Amino acid sequence: MSRSQGLLARLRDGLPAEALLADPDVTTSYANDMASFCPAGTPAVVVLPRTVEQVQHVMRVATELGVPVVPQGARTGLSGGANASEGCVVLSLVKMDRILEISPVDRIAVVEPGVINATLSRAVNEHGLYYPPDPSSWEMCTIGGNIGTASGGLCCVKYGVTAEYVLGLDVVLADGRLLSTGRRTAKGVAGYDLTRLFVGSEGSLGVVVGATLALKPQPPQQLVLAAEFASARAACDAVCAIMEGGHLPSLLELMDRTTVKAVNDLAHMGLPETTEALLMCAFDTADPAADLAAVGALCEAAGATQVVPAEDAAESELLLQARRLALNALEAVKGTTMIDDVCVPRSRLADMLEGVERIAEDHKLTIGVCAHAGDGNTHPTVCFDATDPDESRRARESFDAIMALGLELGGTITGEHGVGVLKKEWLARELGPVGLEMQRKIKEVFDPQGLLNPGKLF
Amino acid sequence: MSRSQGLLARLRDGLPAEALLADPDVTTSYANDMASFCPAGTPAVVVLPRTVEQVQHVMRVATELGVPVVPQGARTGLSGGANASEGCVVLSLVKMDRILEISPVDRIAVVEPGVINATLSRAVNEHGLYYPPDPSSWEMCTIGGNIGTASGGLCCVKYGVTAEYVLGLDVVLADGRLLSTGRRTAKGVAGYDLTRLFVGSEGSLGVVVGATLALKPQPPQQLVLAAEFASARAACDAVCAIMEGGHLPSLLELMDRTTVKAVNDLAHMGLPETTEALLMCAFDTADPAADLAAVGALCEAAGATQVVPAEDAAESELLLQARRLALNALEAVKGTTMIDDVCVPRSRLADMLEGVERIAEDHKLTIGVCAHAGDGNTHPTVCFDATDPDESRRARESFDAIMALGLELGGTITGEHGVGVLKKEWLARELGPVGLEMQRKIKEVFDPQGLLNPGKLF
Repeated sequence: MSRSQGLLARLRDGLPAEALLADPDVTTSYANDMASFCPAGTPAVVVLPRTVEQVQHVMRVATELGVPVVPQGARTGLSGGANASEGCVVLSLVKMDRILEISPVDRIAVVEPGVINATLSRAVNEHGLYYPPDPSSWEMCTIGGNIGTASGGLCCVKYGVTAEYVLGLDVVLADGRLLSTGRRTAKGVAGYDLTRLFVGSEGSLGVVVGATLALKPQPPQQLVLAAEFASARAACDAVCAIMEGGHLPSLLELMDRTTVKAVNDLAHMGLPETTEALLMCAFDTADPAADLAAVGALCEAAGATQVVPAEDAAESELLLQARRLALNALEAVKGTTMIDDVCVPRSRLADMLEGVERIAEDHKLTIGVCAHAGDGNTHPTVCFDATDPDESRRARESFDAIMALGLELGGTITGEHGVGVLKKEWLARELGPVGLEMQRKIKEVFDPQGLLNPGKLF
Repeated sequence: MSRSQGLLARLRDGLPAEALLADPDVTTSYANDMASFCPAGTPAVVVLPRTVEQVQHVMRVATELGVPVVPQGARTGLSGGANASEGCVVLSLVKMDRILEISPVDRIAVVEPGVINATLSRAVNEHGLYYPPDPSSWEMCTIGGNIGTASGGLCCVKYGVTAEYVLGLDVVLADGRLLSTGRRTAKGVAGYDLTRLFVGSEGSLGVVVGATLALKPQPPQQLVLAAEFASARAACDAVCAIMEGGHLPSLLELMDRTTVKAVNDLAHMGLPETTEALLMCAFDTADPAADLAAVGALCEAAGATQVVPAEDAAESELLLQARRLALNALEAVKGTTMIDDVCVPRSRLADMLEGVERIAEDHKLTIGVCAHAGDGNTHPTVCFDATDPDESRRARESFDAIMALGLELGGTITGEHGVGVLKKEWLARELGPVGLEMQRKIKEVFDPQGLLNPGKLF
């Protein structure tokens, strides 16, 4: 009996037949997430558990046999964090997709990890509640995946990232034991914050099998304003003025000329291509029109060439749709993209955008930038032809140059996408030797055999 | 040369004379924080460093000689977390009290750990900014101490606890190396969240020597409403209705009859002693009067016997002052108090309050309760005569009964005060064996010799 057959036989002991996929044609389709340039191995088997006990069984078998395990959600990640290792068990949590509880009084939801972000969002809306984290992939991505990467979205400038909404977790450890962290109360400081340690750990410390999430009351419908600028710097000046002015926009996004043109090409949205930078700002306050008027004045003072507040929800939605199409549109430019995720202090946002422009010129590449500008979180997106080796090489080099620039400006290599495979050399640079050593030691505490999502992060 | 003289000599090598206190009359005054019933040892020496390098020196010497180190802020803690161990180095960070930077664009402050909470609050106010965490001791307590216990306050129902405002830390490790965690950007997910691991770790993993804090824009002045109820349950029903109704009060506090009477006795504030529970609710929104009117109606629907909205800031401040006096007032009742800090899901708040009433009766004690009701965070405060051994025993027993009740109701033994010495047996109960094991292993990673604040937490 081969090693792989031994693994299958042991897994079958505690799993129903339909939870195990071993046909190579099928398992191969679980090898990758949505990142470019990230190597992936071939899974030995894909497991689709429906219960905590089944996950515990998988981890016990994996520990016993020394087989690596790669936890997966919807594989919408952009850093290769969910890519298979050679001969691994892919542990896909997508079938554990129940919403177990929604409490309007306690403002919490208790969910399994495979719940789709949009499904949860709509379910809590029906109770007058709001689950803010809204990554671009929100119609597909899972809460478990969101927790794995501490993912963000458009809402973060006001509402923060996924990490801020995770109160407690149920986690299956490498050896199959179940660990419960955190709480279902609004506050709690009993012991070290293990909940937060798991959020953003990219499946490398344990397998999240349940989460207690904090919810907000549903805010009023947001109203959006669009402002055109003759330079990226002017748009960034407006961003700084808005934030310095004490405003709390629910969204503050920037698209550069390349991105605006790409969106028009893809979807014929009629965005103004004469602009160098398009800023979108929204408020979900009691009087959004008043807030937008104040922000509009700040944009004009910063040199906006045109300021267009949406009249109503429908116009607002149209503007947001343009923003949401940005990455798809940039992908259409040359067939392939590398999406970066550098976050800088917002006071350095203009330096970042100008720097990316220089990097694009130096590398003779098209790099479109859309940004969660209010957070200083930029997504410089390198557009290239993957069949052209020289262009591919330049794409990879420009990607690295962008991260180097981000660190130089006091930023981080990843604001919300995670490290995965794509940025692991860069993580070491950002953390420094002491930080890296402590992080590795924490990994050893939870996963002494190094079986959980090996080759990621470090 | 005695062991203690050897320690002093080694410490002197890297510290100015005025940073070292060795006179037993002086060092003894650093033995305790503000908790009752918590044993404390006698420090061998108190060090008051002014620089990161001096802290590193202390930790290097301590590691070399195997001497325990107890980091301290203003010693306003309520769980014995800052109490000295026998023969330890007390490392008081109060002289590292500089605010290094305040940035209105990036909405951050960079501070040393000894900055007083109120000093920082006022300094950022001058820039139109707001640092929300406001523990009762805010005029005395330090940011470093707040980080150590992840402390809360009145603001938490809207603004959360200290943990949510710590973006990055500089930490001196047990071996004297400097670790920088986190970031100064609005977002960031590079590696495990070590920042959050240190927040609330009560000085047991490293010595915080610097912090980058997130700030909010300063909200409008809040307006307060007071509502009287004929039972604790009715007041809690109002709390649930307010939260279920989607309101976002900036404060939602409850005082029981015992507390109201104690405050009147101390400060002659003329609070209504005929009430069983007094609720205070505030809004710092654009139209607080409208929000208070809506909440007032919910209070009446829940059975409020009287609803009094403050007319202006001065009236609001008077009501808040009454709330802020609660703990001092309860201390005056019998000379000594044990302040508990149990947080339950707010849907169980009424059960908690009724349970505490039963516990007071069973133990023949006066227990006043004030609560951050919007968070479900109660502070049942046992009033007793410490010179009466039987009453002291009953006080201790009732304190434990209150924590047991909190856990039974799905709550936590500490919402914001921390574990320290006071609750360490209870931490094990809350975490369970797997949780406790993982927490201990993390402690070992950072402090293999067990020198940092020994005997606390576990």
